[in-house]
Amino acid sequence: MTVTLLDTISQPQDLRKLSLPQMDGLAAEIRSLLINTVAKNGGHLAPNLGVVELTLAIHRTFDSPRDKIVWDVGHQAYVHKILCGRRDKFHTLRQHGGISGFPKRSESEHDAFGVGHSSTSISAALGIALARDLSGRDNQVLAVIGDGSLTGGQAYEALNHAGHLGTRFTVIVNDNEMSIAKNVGAMAEYLAKIRSDPTYSRVKRDIDNALRRIPAIGDSVAKTLERAKDSLKFMLVPGMLFEELGFTYIGPIDGHNIAGLCEVLQATKTMNGPVLIHVITQKGKGYSPAECNADRFHGIGPFCVESGETLQCGNRPSYTSVFGDELIKLAADNPDIVAITAAMPEGTGLKKFAERYPKRFFDVGIAEQHAMTLAAGLAAAGKRPVVAVYSTFSQRAFDQIVHDICLQKLPVVICLDRAGIVGEDGATHQGVFDYAFLRSAPNLTMLAPKNETELRQMLAMALKHNGPCVIRYPRGCTLGIPFATESLPVSIGKAERIKLGSDLTLLAIGSAVEECVVASDLLASSGIRAGVVNARFVKPLDEEMIRSLSRETGVLVTVEDGCLAGGFGSAVAELLIDKQLKWVKLLRLGFPDEFIEHGTRAQLLKQYGLDGAAIAEKAASFFREYGAK
Amino acid sequence: MTVTLLDTISQPQDLRKLSLPQMDGLAAEIRSLLINTVAKNGGHLAPNLGVVELTLAIHRTFDSPRDKIVWDVGHQAYVHKILCGRRDKFHTLRQHGGISGFPKRSESEHDAFGVGHSSTSISAALGIALARDLSGRDNQVLAVIGDGSLTGGQAYEALNHAGHLGTRFTVIVNDNEMSIAKNVGAMAEYLAKIRSDPTYSRVKRDIDNALRRIPAIGDSVAKTLERAKDSLKFMLVPGMLFEELGFTYIGPIDGHNIAGLCEVLQATKTMNGPVLIHVITQKGKGYSPAECNADRFHGIGPFCVESGETLQCGNRPSYTSVFGDELIKLAADNPDIVAITAAMPEGTGLKKFAERYPKRFFDVGIAEQHAMTLAAGLAAAGKRPVVAVYSTFSQRAFDQIVHDICLQKLPVVICLDRAGIVGEDGATHQGVFDYAFLRSAPNLTMLAPKNETELRQMLAMALKHNGPCVIRYPRGCTLGIPFATESLPVSIGKAERIKLGSDLTLLAIGSAVEECVVASDLLASSGIRAGVVNARFVKPLDEEMIRSLSRETGVLVTVEDGCLAGGFGSAVAELLIDKQLKWVKLLRLGFPDEFIEHGTRAQLLKQYGLDGAAIAEKAASFFREYGAK
Repeated sequence: MTVTLLDTISQPQDLRKLSLPQMDGLAAEIRSLLINTVAKNGGHLAPNLGVVELTLAIHRTFDSPRDKIVWDVGHQAYVHKILCGRRDKFHTLRQHGGISGFPKRSESEHDAFGVGHSSTSISAALGIALARDLSGRDNQVLAVIGDGSLTGGQAYEALNHAGHLGTRFTVIVNDNEMSIAKNVGAMAEYLAKIRSDPTYSRVKRDIDNALRRIPAIGDSVAKTLERAKDSLKFMLVPGMLFEELGFTYIGPIDGHNIAGLCEVLQATKTMNGPVLIHVITQKGKGYSPAECNADRFHGIGPFCVESGETLQCGNRPSYTSVFGDELIKLAADNPDIVAITAAMPEGTGLKKFAERYPKRFFDVGIAEQHAMTLAAGLAAAGKRPVVAVYSTFSQRAFDQIVHDICLQKLPVVICLDRAGIVGEDGATHQGVFDYAFLRSAPNLTMLAPKNETELRQMLAMALKHNGPCVIRYPRGCTLGIPFATESLPVSIGKAERIKLGSDLTLLAIGSAVEECVVASDLLASSGIRAGVVNARFVKPLDEEMIRSLSRETGVLVTVEDGCLAGGFGSAVAELLIDKQLKWVKLLRLGFPDEFIEHGTRAQLLKQYGLDGAAIAEKAASFFREYGAK
Repeated sequence: MTVTLLDTISQPQDLRKLSLPQMDGLAAEIRSLLINTVAKNGGHLAPNLGVVELTLAIHRTFDSPRDKIVWDVGHQAYVHKILCGRRDKFHTLRQHGGISGFPKRSESEHDAFGVGHSSTSISAALGIALARDLSGRDNQVLAVIGDGSLTGGQAYEALNHAGHLGTRFTVIVNDNEMSIAKNVGAMAEYLAKIRSDPTYSRVKRDIDNALRRIPAIGDSVAKTLERAKDSLKFMLVPGMLFEELGFTYIGPIDGHNIAGLCEVLQATKTMNGPVLIHVITQKGKGYSPAECNADRFHGIGPFCVESGETLQCGNRPSYTSVFGDELIKLAADNPDIVAITAAMPEGTGLKKFAERYPKRFFDVGIAEQHAMTLAAGLAAAGKRPVVAVYSTFSQRAFDQIVHDICLQKLPVVICLDRAGIVGEDGATHQGVFDYAFLRSAPNLTMLAPKNETELRQMLAMALKHNGPCVIRYPRGCTLGIPFATESLPVSIGKAERIKLGSDLTLLAIGSAVEECVVASDLLASSGIRAGVVNARFVKPLDEEMIRSLSRETGVLVTVEDGCLAGGFGSAVAELLIDKQLKWVKLLRLGFPDEFIEHGTRAQLLKQYGLDGAAIAEKAASFFREYGAK
């Protein structure tokens, strides 16, 4: 077996043993490993292909884990993981029990800060740098943040604070002109202006010339620095915006030239105060399907390496696309409907809406807070805004939902995609808290469809309701129900009976309804007659229905794709207690009070006892213990 | 009785009937009304004194409610309220049943957007402007935002989006060099640089010269515009940062020169795209105690107009100051303790800490998201950060608490001041949701002290606990317990028995414990023996104690200074249900599922049945109905 360059790297410091041409060879090996692994496991391909050279340069120049590297979002940290002791486990990426798709402190001492959501890296790195200064240590601290993440307000809050303090640390802006989709916002245009500035090509030439004169290894540090300083003088031209915020701006730098990157990174080691290095990279670099379609290859399921074609899991549409298609239909009849996404036109299914109604579509960047208040403003002025956002990211906008939308009873429809278990993205992304934290907001109506037909009905209903509504639905494929299927009309606060059963009732919400139908059938085969009720609404609850069920079977099992602490079953428990329905025996099934790691949806539902079989088993044993009236 | 100038203003359009010298006279009358009303009712004095001329100029130039004015934070909207039909009710400001201290859509059609929290105005105004454009209307839209609010990330998210869209609307930056305390951050320094720029004085002189040549009323609009344009040319010099973000920058402008303000505002009416007007004002203007001490007069209780002295409500210290003093003590023994505030050094009691340990104190600006992740970074690098923030503002950082702190089990102590009822600030500020939304976060320990002794103990405990802790305590005075009083040591997840009682148990948390002690005494006098237990922990609950109480009395009444939906009582309900303690009769007392308006703490507790007398009454009737075992 041939020894590859990657075989020689057991820790990041080993990179220094390689020559610069060898580094390029290593980059090629890593790209191949990335492509082949993600083709099998799915994952964030294009962002990682874009930062191969940048990551190599960082680890060649700095000394992890002594020096701290904080990755923003973290979906671009695969190369970092490969270099930092996780090459052997890399084939387990994003798989149940395997390594995470994001940096994780518990996984490696090289992962200085865990992440999954955007725009936190500058805050965290500043905190780590301040702690270093207070403790009298002298290590380096870096944040690596994409230009997309710079659209998040928290990144600006941190820049504003860091520039004020003058703390010594380095922010590397990885500028690939994309967040997930094509970037939006004035900041993106500002960065583009810098890129197209003639000084850029001049700086590039200068660095190239300087580098040609440096023997790769063994050159005295002093001399290198001297030359670097000369180059830097030329580089300190654009980026005035960052300079105004108190940062020393260096850039733009070619993010695929390892030697140039190393030179600049080395130079920053001795600089005082905060430094911002503007690095230009190409998302998907080195794999032409991803270069041509970085959006689709941002986060992708398993695909064929040769063709770049995604492997389909059947032809049922996703909830995302059902939502997108239905909104287009509804918008045709109601010109007041407008749609908002926070940098996720594709992920939330709004891309087609944007093409069809470009003036009624707003991509605000990775800015969930602004998205919600913008919607509130639109609603206050007579529009019917729909904000589509992943459940986990709605946590970013809790205050805006409460303070701007619910307090004013504004008719904003918030569609939470990727609610419940999201699968391979893991603990940072599971949308399991939404019922619990949103349920406390007064004036809010919160519902979840059992299938795609109901999603369409609920969206239509929400857009007629004169107040704020949240609709939450899961990631992935729908049940494949024929489009024309009729379902009971959705009316506020009314649950739906799916199946009668005289022994107990499975009271489920959202995607748990389908699992309960399966469970009910299994229970029937062991002689237990379990009814199934689709709650539809978490808020307001259908008190009348719950009272009826209490009288009929007296044994309720709530099932939800969310956390038990404060969630749907908690609301049912409150109702039973407050209405003194004390004879009812209630079993609450949902996720326990812990973060849920990555794995497939099926694996996680099984593990936590939330698939049909597990629900049947738990309901049966509960019924046997408490069911006898 | 003399007819005042204010008597002639029944709607904002009436301002146009006044001459410019009369406008100055009106400003003086309004200042006097502001000072005398806030001296009696308490409120936000300094911010309103600073915007008298600005508000007059806005309402003279624009046409509310057709034109939409969105106030950021809204504590500076008193002048607006006086001018917009609420002069007669102004004496009811912030009083129970009276007008709110903040803009409120339900209060007046002139309040285009309700508010109370910071940094939302640009988002809302942009939404309103986009709706206008989509509907083919042509009204003007303004956001008025303080330089302090500009430190909030959401403001930047909105600027970034608005600059990109090029939507026609105006952002007025009211720059008084303060948020609540002295402003921090690189943006503040940037604004200061503009202020001290020599072009500023030149612009001022130009405007003054131009104005001297304008007959106040009757001048043709065209001519005014022409002159304005000339002045504008000179003004378009600084503010490049905003220009880079896509805004047309105008300023800085003297915010106390009504004529100058009117001229500039008039000129913006015909400008395309987003405009940012940078106005310089003095906080507290026209009342020397407030000018000298704008921080103290930002939000203030009743005071003596002549001396400016605050009227004290006794000599018991506030929870805020007990927290601040104790943290200083603990920090003396542990050099790793650091403290973070989001623009509230005074309000959170950290001012003395900042003076004592300047290097270990961080004021991040109005940036709660950054505050939490910064703390996470500090904790990840070995520090023991304490973030002190008002409960209502912690809603801004829910995601950071979950994703950055709890997921990584980092030992950050979050101190929620102003938890529960905050009184006169009303619906936007009540800290009633914290138990409910934070309880869903795994790995979090959440506790609330019954009094100041316990607050000190809990803080000490939390700073030794190896994981995230939230401590929440109310606004206002402590119980006045002698400092040396001993209390049962606080240990994780353990409740405290206050009083035995064989009929029922009042299970209370935080400030509700004291009310329950009162209730217990009242119950005793009607022959009901009510025990009192101080829960101390909302998470983890003391299961053992609740099991004991279930066996002992079987009748539990939970009492909390928070919302019932998902709150403390909800957690107890979950426990009773999940552990099948079904014989227990539980009554949950707390705030119902609605926003709680303004009023004193005593008024609101009485109204919602949460003071001692009401608790006793409800507990008694519950006991009579369900208590017989």
